[in-house]
Amino acid sequence: MTVDLSLEPVLGALNYIAIAFFAATGALAAARKNQTIVTFVFLGLVVGMGGVTVRDIMIDAPLFWIHSNALPIIAILASILVWFVPASWWRENMIDWFDAVGLAAYAVYGAAKALEFGVDPAPAVLIGCIAAVAGGILRDVIVGETALVMGENIYISAAFLAAASFIILTISGVPLSLAGLIGALAGFALRGAAIHFNLRLPAYKRG
Amino acid sequence: MTVDLSLEPVLGALNYIAIAFFAATGALAAARKNQTIVTFVFLGLVVGMGGVTVRDIMIDAPLFWIHSNALPIIAILASILVWFVPASWWRENMIDWFDAVGLAAYAVYGAAKALEFGVDPAPAVLIGCIAAVAGGILRDVIVGETALVMGENIYISAAFLAAASFIILTISGVPLSLAGLIGALAGFALRGAAIHFNLRLPAYKRG
Amino acid sequence: MTVDLSLEPVLGALNYIAIAFFAATGALAAARKNQTIVTFVFLGLVVGMGGVTVRDIMIDAPLFWIHSNALPIIAILASILVWFVPASWWRENMIDWFDAVGLAAYAVYGAAKALEFGVDPAPAVLIGCIAAVAGGILRDVIVGETALVMGENIYISAAFLAAASFIILTISGVPLSLAGLIGALAGFALRGAAIHFNLRLPAYKRG
Repeated sequence: MTVDLSLEPVLGALNYIAIAFFAATGALAAARKNQTIVTFVFLGLVVGMGGVTVRDIMIDAPLFWIHSNALPIIAILASILVWFVPASWWRENMIDWFDAVGLAAYAVYGAAKALEFGVDPAPAVLIGCIAAVAGGILRDVIVGETALVMGENIYISAAFLAAASFIILTISGVPLSLAGLIGALAGFALRGAAIHFNLRLPAYKRG
Repeated sequence: MTVDLSLEPVLGALNYIAIAFFAATGALAAARKNQTIVTFVFLGLVVGMGGVTVRDIMIDAPLFWIHSNALPIIAILASILVWFVPASWWRENMIDWFDAVGLAAYAVYGAAKALEFGVDPAPAVLIGCIAAVAGGILRDVIVGETALVMGENIYISAAFLAAASFIILTISGVPLSLAGLIGALAGFALRGAAIHFNLRLPAYKRG
Repeated sequence: MTVDLSLEPVLGALNYIAIAFFAATGALAAARKNQTIVTFVFLGLVVGMGGVTVRDIMIDAPLFWIHSNALPIIAILASILVWFVPASWWRENMIDWFDAVGLAAYAVYGAAKALEFGVDPAPAVLIGCIAAVAGGILRDVIVGETALVMGENIYISAAFLAAASFIILTISGVPLSLAGLIGALAGFALRGAAIHFNLRLPAYKRG
């Protein structure tokens, strides 16, 4: 399958959206720990660009942010914005909602980029999931919180839904942009419903 | 030294064994935290394939699981199996024993794959050790437990014994499969003895 | 900009210094947790070579320690030295001071190596910062301590100062060795002042 993401403005937009929202979650995590502006920006960069750095290394693509100043700048601006917004404006679980946007967008974009670099459809879904969750794992590990992937809510399933539905639609001949939009919306809807209604899969019981 | 692992069924078997057992430790770690089936599979994939992903990136090899669907499928099946086995069947320290199998097998296979990609014998031992411990570190960091490498028992030494004895035997002209078998058994025996007899190296004392 | 680090003994020295001091912080972290000599050496290797491994993977350079036995040997020797030095000789915050040396040296050397591999100046500063902080983050995450990057003191700013001043001076035509020396000293001076005088940037306040 030949994919050229530079011709797909909708998928490109998902990339920018994910960077901005994930960077904001890094800055919000810094805010929770009463960090300085430098740590806001550092965590913004790590979370905004961490998952996709792991993705590009795995598919052997040149690191996207070495060749595009726009992307780190978006992460830095989003982090600084969080610093200046009064804390009282944020709802308690805003970090979960922002993370949900980034999760859905990176799952789709990561799977699309894997296709572009010649990865088969099945491992491309896996790459999308890893790109979607790795930034958040880095965030939670560095700030010393329980990783969101270990939470009780539906989380990885939403990334999987986004990446898998995008790949299946694309294979079925749906145009990339439409497939990307549907995949991202499906993943975000599932994760959003999980946050809002506290949806859970059945958990393992010992003994 | 020219090494072609595709001609070495014994070493290939070590690879499959390590993926299955490490994946099971990821699922067992998920069980300890009462996670869902999705987190079981996610941790199974991360632990089963984490160490070798780090290895392939370091030696600049193409990621093995992008070109072999068999390997992720083994990790997924092992994780699902853990989900369905009644918890009462597991002995308390089963995770340590499964980890010991994966540790010994990946140390040997990691060192062998480094040789195949032109790495010198000494750094190949190091690559083997990293491949052996990285998956477990990822597991322990993500679930929020103390890393096994920080435990009091002999652990890294066993990975080192496996990788180093394999490399020394191979350099000495022992056939790869035999060297691999001896190295893996030696590493597993040392780690197993450490678990069973609670063997410890002398620890640092302050003051 | 054409940079050939093999012709720059001052920058090469920064590389060796950083490995030795970062490895020592890994061993000191192991000492705090009463670990064995094997864990001392393991953490010494991980911290001494972790940041630069991440760096080389990001700029797509061959892993430096696969082609130079000298570097792992330095990390191992530094770790063993820490094991044999009586604990009473170490001041309580020696780990912070050693980390400060490694931080400043790797920030400069990482930025220089990024230039050598064709990275533009702005992302080269970012690569330098990541190379400077990644080893310490790995150390703190593996031993289970709060990451130094999350501390209240000035930390990332010092890495940024070192990398950015080196890059700016180099672009301005200052010889590489002099620029490297000034950058590293500036970064170390800022971090040292932060440790000694407990300097802090203003932190985010909630509510």
